[in-house]
Amino acid sequence: MSDKLVSRSDDFNEWYNTLVLKADLADYGPVRGTMIVKPYGWALWENIQQALDRRFKATGHVNAAFPMFIPHSFMERESKHVEGFSPQLAVVTHGGGQELEEPLVVRPTSETLIGHAFSKWINSYRDLPVLLNLWNSVVRWELRTKLFLRTSEFYWQEGHTAHATLEEAEFETRQMLDVYTDFAVNDAAVPVIPGEKSPLERFAGADRTLTIEAMMGDGRALQSGTSHNLGQNFAKAFDIKYLDANNSLQYCWTTSWGLSTRFIGAIIMVHGDDQGLILPPRLAPHQVVMVPIYKNDTEKSAVLPVAERIKQELVEAGIRVKVDQREHLSPGFKFNDWEMRGVPVRIEIGPKDVTNNVAALARRDKPGREGKQFVSQEGLAQTVKGLLDTVQEALLERARRFRDERTYTVDNYDDFKEAIKTGFAKVWWAGSDADEQQVQAETKATLRCLPLEQPGGSEVCFYTGKPADRIAIFGRAY
Amino acid sequence: MSDKLVSRSDDFNEWYNTLVLKADLADYGPVRGTMIVKPYGWALWENIQQALDRRFKATGHVNAAFPMFIPHSFMERESKHVEGFSPQLAVVTHGGGQELEEPLVVRPTSETLIGHAFSKWINSYRDLPVLLNLWNSVVRWELRTKLFLRTSEFYWQEGHTAHATLEEAEFETRQMLDVYTDFAVNDAAVPVIPGEKSPLERFAGADRTLTIEAMMGDGRALQSGTSHNLGQNFAKAFDIKYLDANNSLQYCWTTSWGLSTRFIGAIIMVHGDDQGLILPPRLAPHQVVMVPIYKNDTEKSAVLPVAERIKQELVEAGIRVKVDQREHLSPGFKFNDWEMRGVPVRIEIGPKDVTNNVAALARRDKPGREGKQFVSQEGLAQTVKGLLDTVQEALLERARRFRDERTYTVDNYDDFKEAIKTGFAKVWWAGSDADEQQVQAETKATLRCLPLEQPGGSEVCFYTGKPADRIAIFGRAY
Repeated sequence: MSDKLVSRSDDFNEWYNTLVLKADLADYGPVRGTMIVKPYGWALWENIQQALDRRFKATGHVNAAFPMFIPHSFMERESKHVEGFSPQLAVVTHGGGQELEEPLVVRPTSETLIGHAFSKWINSYRDLPVLLNLWNSVVRWELRTKLFLRTSEFYWQEGHTAHATLEEAEFETRQMLDVYTDFAVNDAAVPVIPGEKSPLERFAGADRTLTIEAMMGDGRALQSGTSHNLGQNFAKAFDIKYLDANNSLQYCWTTSWGLSTRFIGAIIMVHGDDQGLILPPRLAPHQVVMVPIYKNDTEKSAVLPVAERIKQELVEAGIRVKVDQREHLSPGFKFNDWEMRGVPVRIEIGPKDVTNNVAALARRDKPGREGKQFVSQEGLAQTVKGLLDTVQEALLERARRFRDERTYTVDNYDDFKEAIKTGFAKVWWAGSDADEQQVQAETKATLRCLPLEQPGGSEVCFYTGKPADRIAIFGRAY
Repeated sequence: MSDKLVSRSDDFNEWYNTLVLKADLADYGPVRGTMIVKPYGWALWENIQQALDRRFKATGHVNAAFPMFIPHSFMERESKHVEGFSPQLAVVTHGGGQELEEPLVVRPTSETLIGHAFSKWINSYRDLPVLLNLWNSVVRWELRTKLFLRTSEFYWQEGHTAHATLEEAEFETRQMLDVYTDFAVNDAAVPVIPGEKSPLERFAGADRTLTIEAMMGDGRALQSGTSHNLGQNFAKAFDIKYLDANNSLQYCWTTSWGLSTRFIGAIIMVHGDDQGLILPPRLAPHQVVMVPIYKNDTEKSAVLPVAERIKQELVEAGIRVKVDQREHLSPGFKFNDWEMRGVPVRIEIGPKDVTNNVAALARRDKPGREGKQFVSQEGLAQTVKGLLDTVQEALLERARRFRDERTYTVDNYDDFKEAIKTGFAKVWWAGSDADEQQVQAETKATLRCLPLEQPGGSEVCFYTGKPADRIAIFGRAY
């Protein structure tokens, strides 16, 4: 546990792979491409779930559960959908000892099952909107495993909604992107760029895909959540119709949106350092770890009751606190261990602190003396709450500064190529699909998004030289 | 929605199947054997999850997530396990467009994956105990679908633990059965009989299986949760070993325990009546439904603000309340609709009630005048809280009386055959596996459990005539 990581700047990839294991977040499953999410990683995901679920319910959504098996023929009803997902499917051909008449697909996403159900459930405009969310796992075949970022099975939520009009569907698509943005920025301290995907990067079957894009600690991009306006594509493929107020039959407009355990990868890669994880306080399984320090039984009997009292005060103040009472480990070992796991604040309490009525607080995000202070035990819960807020803000601020410093506004291809070596290129863009593919082939950079926030006006496209009325963000992506 | 159900006493089976659909709990998936859990059913399951998860965490367990795919060879390592589960497996043979070298099983339960992981994770006695729980879905192939009771895919939790000694594993097995019993009795108002399964009915791979058995409204039995002492069977099959304090290598002792969406079937069949569901207040998605009553805009503007104020008071008191403001439906329709969905308490508020500062409360478990009362709006939240507790107790009491009345202590085979037509037969039992199979073949009744609570002493076995020192409960089961 206490062995060092490779330095983040020396080998970011190796740093990430080792950290996920050392911080005890996840492990490899026995089947290639699969992942075991260990208790510490799952507790982080449960906090992400709660942070999102609260927002989904506040915007009127309800949870449900759909089967994991999809008849193979369902996948084929929407032509772009099947084209996009076919190469990634896991197929069940035998059940109960028999070969199946029709093979079953393990869901890569549930639009088709939802389409089938909506067509049964929706009859009248009074049934609309339908605002569903599912928490589950999906399967998209992968051979090159990278824990949290690329696994055959991953955990996520998938929202699915049906509406009477295009305007309502468009409102929903944007609303859920705003929910993701709010969660990313304010709970995960991950600054994201909300934007629209180019046609090439759209979800298979969508008319429009919105995305939040984040910059990782090596300057590369991670698509961190997407929200799709599916138009009437699935409504037509699955015959989702409703009788409007004039008794006339209309196709519905549908949306879908998802955020996955991939986001844990973003948290690791945005905030972590050479000592390990740094978790944003709002999502950390343990916001505070307390390490009682003593050398003998006399000191122990002085320290432990105070540690217990402080713990109670913190718990009552709603702080998630862990007391590390492991007997066979030194305080120094424990400090390193909890730093690896990214607990935002550490409290040390020893015999002198008990005498002086103080405690030592150490911030995970500021190593050494700079992040350490001795504070009074009086009002400690309030002090700690304040410090957690400070850490939360500092993480966001640091990540934002890093991203802004590495986002380069460029107007020619040479500068573009230089920019995407270490970060994002921000450019005026009027290219075609073919131009976009060409840029990718030549530079490995992809069009991450056309930001929702645009400067307005018109400039020259950096690549085609044509007049462009929008800026785009390019970057090399995970 | 308001159409009548068939009477429970006329056709219990049809009553159940129709009710699940009419109460909007679940629907059939497009693949035979699969189930869609609709938002109302899923909200009930989420409340069950919370009630159990709280108890799991209080007893030191942590959640994690394991992959759904198991290498086929893993299933074969524990001989009884593969024998028990082979006929029910769904098998993935193709992934990413290729035929797989080794077919994958979609988990029917995760003992084998857990065994593989434990063997990697556990090294020393300091690593023990490991106390895990997983919330997921599993697949056991079924062709005859019955929603919640028998579906190819179902939702559950599976606990998996590893211990240093047999005694600790035995303590855990019993502790988790007690957790299930406490949940069933105190949250679901389902009186259960905690007991041990006979060797024939054990989990495939267990040394000992404990169970909670409940009686449904037609007198039949439902196994409602099980807890298994797996001995060293999986430890030996998967090489789960630890170094003890004397530096000597030992096999671990493991347990597993599960409770599934099947339990929703128990809640429906124990409490429901001819008007629909009756949900126990502690688990009901809506504990209270409020129906504002008005005939014109003047009345509406008098009633709605009071309804809103009452709602706020109830929400602040921690009561889950739904206000039914649907404009196009009559109060009578709404009453029937919420009765079908089993909301424990209804509040009616009309213009007269506003004038008189009262509200009408109607209990779902007591139809008509008997269950209805007018109460003051002063302190209404407390009144409602008290009423919810009363309903909760009344449901448990009624179910317990029903079960006790239909549990017949019998000492001969004729009376036994009569008893199991309408309920449970309680008998002294000293039969062999073959005797047990013979009884089942002749009567369709199975040995539900050997209750943990035994009278002591010894009597004559009703079937073999041999001396018996234990009583057993037999019944026809779902």
